[in-house]
Amino acid sequence: MDNPKADMQERVILREVGLRDGLQILPEVMPTQDKLAWLSGAYACGLREIEVGSFVPPARMPQLADTSTLVQHALQLPGLTVSVLVPNLKGGIAALASGAHALLFPVSASQAHSMANLRKTPQQAVADVAAIRAERDSAGSACAIEVGISTAFGCTLQGEVRAETVVNLVQEALLAGADKISLADTVGYADPRQVSELFEMMEKVAPGRVVAAHFHDTRGLGIANVMAAYTIGIRRFDSCLGGLGGCPHAPGASGNVSTEDMAYLFARMGVATGVNVEAVLALRQKLSGWLPNHTLYGHIAKAGLPKPATLEVVS
Amino acid sequence: MDNPKADMQERVILREVGLRDGLQILPEVMPTQDKLAWLSGAYACGLREIEVGSFVPPARMPQLADTSTLVQHALQLPGLTVSVLVPNLKGGIAALASGAHALLFPVSASQAHSMANLRKTPQQAVADVAAIRAERDSAGSACAIEVGISTAFGCTLQGEVRAETVVNLVQEALLAGADKISLADTVGYADPRQVSELFEMMEKVAPGRVVAAHFHDTRGLGIANVMAAYTIGIRRFDSCLGGLGGCPHAPGASGNVSTEDMAYLFARMGVATGVNVEAVLALRQKLSGWLPNHTLYGHIAKAGLPKPATLEVVS
Repeated sequence: MDNPKADMQERVILREVGLRDGLQILPEVMPTQDKLAWLSGAYACGLREIEVGSFVPPARMPQLADTSTLVQHALQLPGLTVSVLVPNLKGGIAALASGAHALLFPVSASQAHSMANLRKTPQQAVADVAAIRAERDSAGSACAIEVGISTAFGCTLQGEVRAETVVNLVQEALLAGADKISLADTVGYADPRQVSELFEMMEKVAPGRVVAAHFHDTRGLGIANVMAAYTIGIRRFDSCLGGLGGCPHAPGASGNVSTEDMAYLFARMGVATGVNVEAVLALRQKLSGWLPNHTLYGHIAKAGLPKPATLEVVS
Repeated sequence: MDNPKADMQERVILREVGLRDGLQILPEVMPTQDKLAWLSGAYACGLREIEVGSFVPPARMPQLADTSTLVQHALQLPGLTVSVLVPNLKGGIAALASGAHALLFPVSASQAHSMANLRKTPQQAVADVAAIRAERDSAGSACAIEVGISTAFGCTLQGEVRAETVVNLVQEALLAGADKISLADTVGYADPRQVSELFEMMEKVAPGRVVAAHFHDTRGLGIANVMAAYTIGIRRFDSCLGGLGGCPHAPGASGNVSTEDMAYLFARMGVATGVNVEAVLALRQKLSGWLPNHTLYGHIAKAGLPKPATLEVVS
């Protein structure tokens, strides 16, 4: 393990995924106008990487049917990296056509989750990645292809997911043409020790290619897991405004690590994210107006900032 | 920073402080019978260090007026380390007379908090420690004297607390005769980086003497702070069943790191605490019956254990 202070000042990227991961499990469809306000608001907070939606069949996920509109709006915001999720080749082609800067293709490390979520084996999903890569290269697109390894730390359906399974899948995804990899604790099973060990293993088998982490705070270990990954050098983390994105199988449990808590964590430690914590807290207030029927999660919004209550925005 | 895996298997002690820290800010007085059931229940869960109360004037804190009864009961439980909090010399004498194995004397690093809490400067509090040490030595008691540095990471009254202030106070407390020191984030201001830095500093100025940490989860960083302290070698942590112990100035915010979450964290990582997580979750259910008017905090109770839902008790 590296000394965490050696590069404490190295910039961290918070990638807001609420517009995709947060909204996809809600029963209602957020009006496009509210989504655009959220997107602009997140940008105004200093967030510079935003997953704006997913190119999935609208019939399957009407909540995200306006993804194209969001991409077009997001592409107008200077310096913003616009990413979208895609679950198959068709979605990948749509993402390339949209002009998004990055696409995230989820591949489950759990066979059971992969079948339930994508109706494909992990290997079939990897074959889609190869097809998308071929499409991108023939189109001359600069869109980055990221494979997100879902259920990398365990699965509600099959329980344990072996580290070796994740390693093999990462290698297969890279061979298939993924530019980079992220590891996702889709169901909130990860613990800090496991996070350290898995990311360290990744650095050995695929140096510099596993660059981001996606944690849920379902069991209260989200921030500790972020710190474990940060300590060994990971510098990009997904988060959801208001801690949206909860697992439908864990009622009352929070979802993704909240953007507010994540921004507070790094600001408090003096690590640059460019994100204004107060502005994020104000945006959360707006979100609770847009989603009046949903509980928002996260700690800092409830407790308030420490005194002196001004946190410098470290850019 | 040490490699956390080097001594990953070294045993961690969870010190249950709910009977003191949890109850002292509640408006009602928990009946002694319920407290005794809680105490026995905590012991049955595998907890082997419990702070059972505080020797404070009953008029000032009627919630803890039965501390002597709890100490006597606790002393019957084989292998249990029984500790009490004392705020002054009189309390210290009572603690020594009670036969408790350890007493915790809080000394605030914040001048403002010290005056508000104990009506003494930190230096006057340290003088009390010296007096208690003299009493103990002349009584031939084996009671361990621990000084807990309150507000070691910041203070709601004065804001920042400088690390140098904490260092000086620790040295004064050791000179006054404290056997060991713990650092407390009384108001939930600490961040993982600060925790690493302050405990590393302690190890330099007082090697082996700063042995425990007390974190609140007020701003969601409690478990991450525990991990930061654990990573640099701290092996004793305070926790409260149900995450009781919230700061009255932060409505809706959780209090101490919950015993359930802490036990889950270490069990999930395979670190020995001797604590049975399922039993702690069952005891929490009883606690919610004893305190029907209070919100309990903590994540694992809401989300449930991961699959396979059996966590081995590592002893």
